[in-house]
Amino acid sequence: MKISEIGEDGLINRIVNILKTSYIGDDTAHVSTDGLNLSLTCDILIENRHFLRSYPPSFIGWKAISVNVSDIVASGAKPLWALVSIALPNIEVSYIEALYEGIKSACEFYGLEVVGGNLSSSELISIDVFMVGKTKRALRRFGASPGEGVFVSGTLGDSKAGLEILLSNKKDLTDFENYLVERHLRPTARIDMLEHIVKNASACMDISDGLLRDLDRLAKRSKVGIELYPESIPLSKELKTYARLNSKDALELAMIGGEDYQLLWTQSESSVNVFLDMHQIGRVIEGEGIYIKGSGPIEIKGFDHFAP
Amino acid sequence: MKISEIGEDGLINRIVNILKTSYIGDDTAHVSTDGLNLSLTCDILIENRHFLRSYPPSFIGWKAISVNVSDIVASGAKPLWALVSIALPNIEVSYIEALYEGIKSACEFYGLEVVGGNLSSSELISIDVFMVGKTKRALRRFGASPGEGVFVSGTLGDSKAGLEILLSNKKDLTDFENYLVERHLRPTARIDMLEHIVKNASACMDISDGLLRDLDRLAKRSKVGIELYPESIPLSKELKTYARLNSKDALELAMIGGEDYQLLWTQSESSVNVFLDMHQIGRVIEGEGIYIKGSGPIEIKGFDHFAP
Repeated sequence: MKISEIGEDGLINRIVNILKTSYIGDDTAHVSTDGLNLSLTCDILIENRHFLRSYPPSFIGWKAISVNVSDIVASGAKPLWALVSIALPNIEVSYIEALYEGIKSACEFYGLEVVGGNLSSSELISIDVFMVGKTKRALRRFGASPGEGVFVSGTLGDSKAGLEILLSNKKDLTDFENYLVERHLRPTARIDMLEHIVKNASACMDISDGLLRDLDRLAKRSKVGIELYPESIPLSKELKTYARLNSKDALELAMIGGEDYQLLWTQSESSVNVFLDMHQIGRVIEGEGIYIKGSGPIEIKGFDHFAP
Repeated sequence: MKISEIGEDGLINRIVNILKTSYIGDDTAHVSTDGLNLSLTCDILIENRHFLRSYPPSFIGWKAISVNVSDIVASGAKPLWALVSIALPNIEVSYIEALYEGIKSACEFYGLEVVGGNLSSSELISIDVFMVGKTKRALRRFGASPGEGVFVSGTLGDSKAGLEILLSNKKDLTDFENYLVERHLRPTARIDMLEHIVKNASACMDISDGLLRDLDRLAKRSKVGIELYPESIPLSKELKTYARLNSKDALELAMIGGEDYQLLWTQSESSVNVFLDMHQIGRVIEGEGIYIKGSGPIEIKGFDHFAP
């Protein structure tokens, strides 16, 4: 039996079963020793899977740090330290230096430090980042209760549109296209929302594999259903322009596109802070599945590394 | 300028210069928060670089954990948690299950827990392990003083001989060959020496890139020279048999061969514990370079990922 027959989530279930661990299932691992609560995570960018050699290497470095900060923040922790494990062919030294300049910029922005790492030779470039955060209050994918609101921290679908533009190899991009491409290449983890979610979120994760797929994961882990308000999903004007000019459905890009690295969380509807970039996109309900009012459950689509 | 023109150590120097960090240079990163001292490390095994698909996957899993435990122990820490980041093609599920069985066995043996990880699709299999240990007393590559002895925790060269046997594709291996192959495929990190080195070592590292190269690193970081006693380097009877039957130099295999994962440390010659697997192979001297009594400095050879 090949991995594609059971999919990524099926494989994870089998691994958890072998390891007999209760840790796996959130964006990060919450661990404790001597009264200190830490949050551990890792995420990798692989050439030709997550980026192309032609992308600016400083952006790849920035992104490699950001996707990990996104997980650390979604777990309710402040990022402290990172290790960077790079595998690479015998390429130009200047490429690697630019990549590390991006890593350094991101670390300064988020207030963490690269304290170590590893170099290996390989046919393709990959950047595997391991990050440790100090937990302010452990947030997990479970904990959502019926009656709470479902929130996201910003516009969705921009990254997917940016990727489509990149892959089209179009030259002379317009402003809205550059905006979307930058959202894909150089995402910013929502560390600005950390204090709010630590104080208010009942369940939290970041959106990396597409809103619907990640909503489904949060709902399943919390053992609840979610009623989605599609008209409330925040869409950037750049995404709407892109969709109009290319006969695409902006809402579908927002619901299925991945790599937005926005936060997705549940909390009381009465604790909304109108000064923050938070948008209610639904409500937690009893039961299971993701619904749109008046319709049946939505079939979940999103990114699966091993989809058949 | 390509990476091969400056080598692995040259590239690391440039990276450290960009990151402007004082952390990098030891086997692990020593970090502290709220009075807790932690040791962080990562090490990767990549298909066709560090192992072949034909190797038993449970051994690869064991080794991926062991090489990281080796670094954690060499830093004076007890391993607590690991994250496992695996990239893999659409292979048989049973292969991955066997690999995780090896990971699980190693974690039970060393007393640590896999608390998370990541799965990605890739053309080749790679297993990148991140490990966190709690430091009993931070050990570093610097700290050796003239007059101290230089010690290793066991026989050297076995892993390199085992690799040569594996790559020869010989069938029907004899006992000594099986022993050497197993030393390569399934090394054991010297966690049994942790208490002794925490108590006694002035500088410590593990031997992963060959004795001479790693001795040179320890000497340079400690700003000392080392007088080596080649006749005292411990050699297994299996290695001697292999060398004799294949017209190889056992001592050269021990000095240059990598992946032994024995500990290399300096300490007072008066604190030798004869009940432990510790062998004095030299003495710390003033100056720089690695010497054999009566000869000039030895030219350093060993494994470099990006050697020209």
